[in-house]
Amino acid sequence: MNYRMMGRFISKILAVEAVFMLPALLISLYNKEMRSVQGFLTTIVITMAVALGLRFLCRKAKKGFYAREGMVCVGASWIVMSLLGCLPFWFSGEIPDFVDALFETVSGFTTTGASILDDVEALSMGNLYWRSFTHWLGGMGVLVFVLAIGRSKRGSKNGDKSDGYTMHLLRAESPGPRVGKLVPKMKDTAKILYCLYIFLTVLNVIFLLAGRMPLFDAVCTAFGTAGTGGFGIKADSIAGYSPYLQNVCTVFMLLFGVNFACYYMLLIRQVKSVLMDEELRFYIGIVAGSVLLIAWNVRGMYETLGETVRYAAFQVASIVTTTGFATTDFDLWPSFSKAILLGLMMVGACAGSTGGGFKCGRALLLIKSLRRNVRWILHPQKVQVVRVNRQMVQEWVLDNTNAYLAAYVMIVVASFIVISIDGFSSMTNFSAVLACFNNIGPGLEGVGPTCNFGGYSLLSKGVLIVDMLAGRLEIFPILILFSKSTWTRR
Amino acid sequence: MNYRMMGRFISKILAVEAVFMLPALLISLYNKEMRSVQGFLTTIVITMAVALGLRFLCRKAKKGFYAREGMVCVGASWIVMSLLGCLPFWFSGEIPDFVDALFETVSGFTTTGASILDDVEALSMGNLYWRSFTHWLGGMGVLVFVLAIGRSKRGSKNGDKSDGYTMHLLRAESPGPRVGKLVPKMKDTAKILYCLYIFLTVLNVIFLLAGRMPLFDAVCTAFGTAGTGGFGIKADSIAGYSPYLQNVCTVFMLLFGVNFACYYMLLIRQVKSVLMDEELRFYIGIVAGSVLLIAWNVRGMYETLGETVRYAAFQVASIVTTTGFATTDFDLWPSFSKAILLGLMMVGACAGSTGGGFKCGRALLLIKSLRRNVRWILHPQKVQVVRVNRQMVQEWVLDNTNAYLAAYVMIVVASFIVISIDGFSSMTNFSAVLACFNNIGPGLEGVGPTCNFGGYSLLSKGVLIVDMLAGRLEIFPILILFSKSTWTRR
Repeated sequence: MNYRMMGRFISKILAVEAVFMLPALLISLYNKEMRSVQGFLTTIVITMAVALGLRFLCRKAKKGFYAREGMVCVGASWIVMSLLGCLPFWFSGEIPDFVDALFETVSGFTTTGASILDDVEALSMGNLYWRSFTHWLGGMGVLVFVLAIGRSKRGSKNGDKSDGYTMHLLRAESPGPRVGKLVPKMKDTAKILYCLYIFLTVLNVIFLLAGRMPLFDAVCTAFGTAGTGGFGIKADSIAGYSPYLQNVCTVFMLLFGVNFACYYMLLIRQVKSVLMDEELRFYIGIVAGSVLLIAWNVRGMYETLGETVRYAAFQVASIVTTTGFATTDFDLWPSFSKAILLGLMMVGACAGSTGGGFKCGRALLLIKSLRRNVRWILHPQKVQVVRVNRQMVQEWVLDNTNAYLAAYVMIVVASFIVISIDGFSSMTNFSAVLACFNNIGPGLEGVGPTCNFGGYSLLSKGVLIVDMLAGRLEIFPILILFSKSTWTRR
Repeated sequence: MNYRMMGRFISKILAVEAVFMLPALLISLYNKEMRSVQGFLTTIVITMAVALGLRFLCRKAKKGFYAREGMVCVGASWIVMSLLGCLPFWFSGEIPDFVDALFETVSGFTTTGASILDDVEALSMGNLYWRSFTHWLGGMGVLVFVLAIGRSKRGSKNGDKSDGYTMHLLRAESPGPRVGKLVPKMKDTAKILYCLYIFLTVLNVIFLLAGRMPLFDAVCTAFGTAGTGGFGIKADSIAGYSPYLQNVCTVFMLLFGVNFACYYMLLIRQVKSVLMDEELRFYIGIVAGSVLLIAWNVRGMYETLGETVRYAAFQVASIVTTTGFATTDFDLWPSFSKAILLGLMMVGACAGSTGGGFKCGRALLLIKSLRRNVRWILHPQKVQVVRVNRQMVQEWVLDNTNAYLAAYVMIVVASFIVISIDGFSSMTNFSAVLACFNNIGPGLEGVGPTCNFGGYSLLSKGVLIVDMLAGRLEIFPILILFSKSTWTRR
């Protein structure tokens, strides 16, 4: 294991984190929130100190950085980043319990949006900003950011090796069954992804401002939307904003749930390949289908057809992209609508987007792979391949997808059993696990959109924190971090 | 597709079914239940007529019987068998609705034990007997029975071919990821299985009689236990019987949840290989662990420690073996115990037993295969194999197990969404699907041990009927039966 190389990388991430706390510090200063200012200052100093210390300790790094180093590095850096990122909440005394502060921060970075706060509006502006910003940073991934701002060694001798190392990190942090390169160099891919991400976020802010949302609200809401996070800055999430603003959120949530490779394809004018993209069609299909079914099911609960569709579309977009904003208490909807939402919770957004969950792409692969198994029984002699977008899918991708489902089911069942010790209703616990593991935020019943996760015990919060991290990093980095054989020498 | 060969086979099955209705007819006659007598007589005549008609239509069958014929044949015969098997309930007027009668019969043959009856004790003795007997026949499989009573063509020229055909049928009907031969000939394997099955059932009856259970009760209870079905003949299931009788049920439920190959191994004195069997150890481990955790969780709800353990052990045995008897209303237990039961519902019994569910063997394979994926990331160069009982597991077995999980999850989610239209609570619907698909019987809340499935709409009952069949036949026969490409010529 190349500890020093990993240490250097984590030190870079912490430096980036400290720099990103500066705007929050300024906002606190501007609003004269002295306890928050203190909190941010102390945290920035500690974070920089840890970063410099790590950098000093790991100044002589060997070469050699493989998939396992990538996985361990990503897992460890997300944990360290969360441990330091929660300090402002704790130091300022606004979240007095450390585990609660950690829960809130992990929920932020993993773009879950599950909260332990009874009253969001009681937070200071600085902390509110930082809380929403964690979504934005976690959405596309902080390692991807560090890679994107790094220099591309053009034409250097070990250009390929450095690209391999970048790839292992990017693969470990980015969601989806296959993480491809948009352009030959991985570093340039990371740059393109972040440029698209920033562009869409700015566009989102502009559309929100056009609907007369205050600037601070618009920026925070755009962070929550872009990262498909779901932390709102109001107690009623998005419900208090105008229908226009709600619709803007619906559209942008759906946009951020699309594979960013599609946007790059649009940029380089490969419109046809975007239109033919099977995952995109699948995604649009389930969104449209769910909106129609729910709108039919909740007809009569709202005054006009337009209102009904608006509420249905917002909630569907929020759940399928794993954002977790709410404009209505969907826990009061009929069972059929709730069942559809639970189904959407499991599917999640597209691979390569900022959304979480199992991913449409994986669901598509499973369906196709199942069809192949049926064809195998019918025609045992024929060679059967699985194709997506007319390209053959390699066997190891299918294998990984299957392993992912197995790990997914096992983690959900195990977490569900453990957090049930607290004695909440079964549906509360089950939807809490789904909501955290798929990085959505609100669940049903006791953790529904009007409730929060504050009632869970320390043990349950710990389990849910691990679930959120495992969900965001797609299980394997966390599994490998906690696997015995990673740390035993052979 | 070799329709005639399939037709001949189905005709044999129907003949067997008609013969097995005779004891029920005699019981009705003895108890002077004239409407039941009429019902059974009419059904026997119709069933024999269909069997003879099929036999006549399919008198000249070609050779060639492959995996797909095996699958279609098993799927179709279970449906036909259920359609005819439900007639006595309907003709006698004791279950006036045809779909309800079908639900009850499918629930019987698939050893689910989910009931639509408000008052079981209102049924006539003949119908009660037939209802319990469907469990026994479905438990080990009616095709396996037909194969077991068929002549073994010793030394005949096409002995091997006939064995292949037998194997395709046995594979399609028997549960578990790998259906192996105990002895070189498949027919002899089927015979051994049924002999063991009959022996254990008789033993069960004797133990029940020793506890002064009336003969009729003992036989019906033994049928329900042996098939891991769960239809009781009393309104309070097993709760009204003495602690001794409850413990006998607990032990025999667990015994019938063990792979029958283990009993054969004991017979031929391979004790060590039974003790080392990884699936058996896994099964014993989760049973013991669940009993301990639940007994700890429900302490204080019952008077003595002995009573607590007895209730915990009975319910755990009933759920893990997918029987579905109950001695207490576990829906009133705390969430943690209910969560463990839901977890057990998903795992199910051992492969090669009469129990349903996902099977311990499959869960074990998934865990091992996941560990291999972790090792792959850590050591990409090494060849990694999965071993169970020190033997290498072939890749296609792992592949099928993964496909099985994918199909399992998809069917559960889809069924859950569809039956939610009826508007029952989410946990009712979710546990109803799990209880039917895993062939258990009772679920939680609205379908808990003191409730029944009668409130569901026609559509939902239809979905649950398909789930029960898909669960018992392990999905693929039903998938293939309803797959378009089975019926299109290429």
